[in-house]
Amino acid sequence: MGQNLALNIAEKGFPISVYNRTTSKVDETVERAKREGNLPLYGFHDPESFVNSIQKPRVIVMLVKAGAPVDDTIKTLSAYMEKGDCIIDGGNEWYENTERRQKAMLEKGLLYLGMGVSGGEEGARNGPSMMPGGSFEVYKYIEDILLKVAAQVPDSGPCMVHNGIEYGDMQLIAEAYDVLKSVGKLSNEELHKVFTEWNKGELLSFLVEITADIFGIKDDKGEGYLVDKVLDKTGMKGTGKWTVQQAADLSIAAPTIASSLDARFLSGLKEERVQAAEVFKSGGFSDILSEQVVDKEKLIDDVRKALYASKICSYAQGMNLIRAKSVEKGWGLKLGELARIWKGGCIIRAVFLDRIKKAYDRNPELSNLLVDPEFAKEIIERQTAWRRVVCLAVSSGVSTPGMSSSLAYFDSYRRERLPANLVQAQRDYFGAHTYERTDMEGSFHTEWFKIARQSKY
Amino acid sequence: MGQNLALNIAEKGFPISVYNRTTSKVDETVERAKREGNLPLYGFHDPESFVNSIQKPRVIVMLVKAGAPVDDTIKTLSAYMEKGDCIIDGGNEWYENTERRQKAMLEKGLLYLGMGVSGGEEGARNGPSMMPGGSFEVYKYIEDILLKVAAQVPDSGPCMVHNGIEYGDMQLIAEAYDVLKSVGKLSNEELHKVFTEWNKGELLSFLVEITADIFGIKDDKGEGYLVDKVLDKTGMKGTGKWTVQQAADLSIAAPTIASSLDARFLSGLKEERVQAAEVFKSGGFSDILSEQVVDKEKLIDDVRKALYASKICSYAQGMNLIRAKSVEKGWGLKLGELARIWKGGCIIRAVFLDRIKKAYDRNPELSNLLVDPEFAKEIIERQTAWRRVVCLAVSSGVSTPGMSSSLAYFDSYRRERLPANLVQAQRDYFGAHTYERTDMEGSFHTEWFKIARQSKY
Repeated sequence: MGQNLALNIAEKGFPISVYNRTTSKVDETVERAKREGNLPLYGFHDPESFVNSIQKPRVIVMLVKAGAPVDDTIKTLSAYMEKGDCIIDGGNEWYENTERRQKAMLEKGLLYLGMGVSGGEEGARNGPSMMPGGSFEVYKYIEDILLKVAAQVPDSGPCMVHNGIEYGDMQLIAEAYDVLKSVGKLSNEELHKVFTEWNKGELLSFLVEITADIFGIKDDKGEGYLVDKVLDKTGMKGTGKWTVQQAADLSIAAPTIASSLDARFLSGLKEERVQAAEVFKSGGFSDILSEQVVDKEKLIDDVRKALYASKICSYAQGMNLIRAKSVEKGWGLKLGELARIWKGGCIIRAVFLDRIKKAYDRNPELSNLLVDPEFAKEIIERQTAWRRVVCLAVSSGVSTPGMSSSLAYFDSYRRERLPANLVQAQRDYFGAHTYERTDMEGSFHTEWFKIARQSKY
Repeated sequence: MGQNLALNIAEKGFPISVYNRTTSKVDETVERAKREGNLPLYGFHDPESFVNSIQKPRVIVMLVKAGAPVDDTIKTLSAYMEKGDCIIDGGNEWYENTERRQKAMLEKGLLYLGMGVSGGEEGARNGPSMMPGGSFEVYKYIEDILLKVAAQVPDSGPCMVHNGIEYGDMQLIAEAYDVLKSVGKLSNEELHKVFTEWNKGELLSFLVEITADIFGIKDDKGEGYLVDKVLDKTGMKGTGKWTVQQAADLSIAAPTIASSLDARFLSGLKEERVQAAEVFKSGGFSDILSEQVVDKEKLIDDVRKALYASKICSYAQGMNLIRAKSVEKGWGLKLGELARIWKGGCIIRAVFLDRIKKAYDRNPELSNLLVDPEFAKEIIERQTAWRRVVCLAVSSGVSTPGMSSSLAYFDSYRRERLPANLVQAQRDYFGAHTYERTDMEGSFHTEWFKIARQSKY
């Protein structure tokens, strides 16, 4: 895998040095690089000359077995490295180890990044799925290389669903923002504080962190804060669409993700929305329907809980979609493992992913995250606040499609009996689609029309 | 078109007689039937022998120009027809004319059906899209023929979207049922009365009618009403899925339709739901969360309004999807015309479709049904009740995914400013996707991370 990744990087035009304790492996890699088109790959038999051969600030990608071998390799290499240099662990290391090493390296002035690489040998050579995690700063160092080396077409299922989940997270945060701003009348300064605070607890995540940052940034072209000058039109690249279509294909309900995609579509209709707002304003309808007096602190607390509970629903949908796809394709994916890899990197990295990993560790066959005992408990603790926020939004005219579809998902999933009996009765009425019964086995058809007509006339 | 449809029917093994005032056309059709494989098609040069040749009860499909020619043909043919015989108008007649003729025919003991046929000449020969309308009884006469003659693969866009809208209607009715039953504690007798009453007003439609019927039917295998014995698992045939996937492809928000599809998916997870209900019950969570004392009459009135307003949103989505598909495919569909055809037939036929036709008559370029002055007015009149129902459902733990996603759709569409600015700022933060500004032209990128870091350290 290391060999293939090195050849892949060299092939993309990035000169690369390689080193391995087993010198024959080094020679073999150099040979392959020659055979495969004189790629700019250089082999070294000792760590010192290897490290010295690299241009500063150095970036070294390490692919060794997780655990002690990683610590050994770090020790060997860091002896020759200098301040500002960086080591990237490309093995699938448990993130807590990665975090420990990050801290230790930082004390020496060295940078450290964990990066899940998936795609196997073949993937490593031709385009692996790579999920770097750690500081954004370090990521920026190697972004150019990664973008060229990684799979160019985002065709891997988990990666795409990951993006759908990312849509969900972003939309839920946007709704929290909208409720706090439009109903709670929080200023950007207050929002900055709220999100900074949230990032210390259960919501700790990259997206909440950057959201806090965003609210703190002043407009460099005028008065006030930049976020208020950004046009409310969200772009997209097709991954959310793919997730929604896959979910429909696989009969997986993914309403939070779907509503996030719809929110982007509707955001794009800016001109139509401006016109619609005028139509309804002229009908006596204001932007925010009723100016409610709210207790800010209470609202902030409620919204945090609503955001967290909605997030559980969104991930439950995403995870079930990934499982269905994995079953269809025979990928044999382990959902807990996936949460671990995401924890190590990418946009949706969050402390929350630990809980998901633990849920699947407890029960790898878990049918839905919602019924994991820990998640169920968390939802029960938050559901009253969650309902309050959705109701407040509904009565204020602030749309919270992500939070309310998450809540509807939860309330549908947790109910033994849904009104689907009526829908099935309708289908049997007009299309003889038959129905099952609650009290006996079998498939039944009733001549509803005939019976109703007899009783009518 | 008549010739092609006749050949199509004959080819499917149904013997058919044909007649036209222009005898050469009859002979030409007979010739083609011979050439195309001795199809069982028989030509007649006078109306009397034509009518007499048909097996009783006779079914005659008439394809003549809408308006006076239809009345002339009815007069000519009905002279020889007998009680129980049926004429089907396969032209695209204005439904009010069809209704007038239906009544007039019924007085003579004759049945009459309007049936929109679309697909043009080629479609008529190989599989037209046919939308019969009128009494269900008459439809049952010709169901066998229609099912074989019509397009076998449901590949026509409007037809598929029609089915998506049908999903939405059925889901919204099911939610109305759930709220009235689970929160309002209405009995089946009361529900029967409510839906019967609703079917006299703005909600007059085939689906509301059959829903009323369903609540009136007793279980023939035990005590009580049949609807309560029907298992709450809804089947589906793929058309809703297709609609949702198309909407995603065409960047059209269709949350009501999507949530109806999701509701079917979740209904299918009966065993999981039973288990989930237990998990949450053991956490002190009951099926209906808070037993609220509600004013039944007020609730019924509110739910009716919520259902109607949600329906407008659902059709707005469906119509915009059809338009987008039509533009993509160059179909040149007229949306008002489509509403007229649907009015003439099919599952979603409803008095409501008149309003849609009128909206597009008023403005064929209408960007969204929601901003048509009449619909806007209707929504404004109903929105308070609509919000009350959604809030009541949310606080009671009754999921109303269709109604609440419709409301979120409305509240998103009518708002000039959405929190999409934050999402776009996030995208620019982590992916340099750039953003537009509210106050100046152009595309902007900010080094959010760098600025935030500077201010932090």
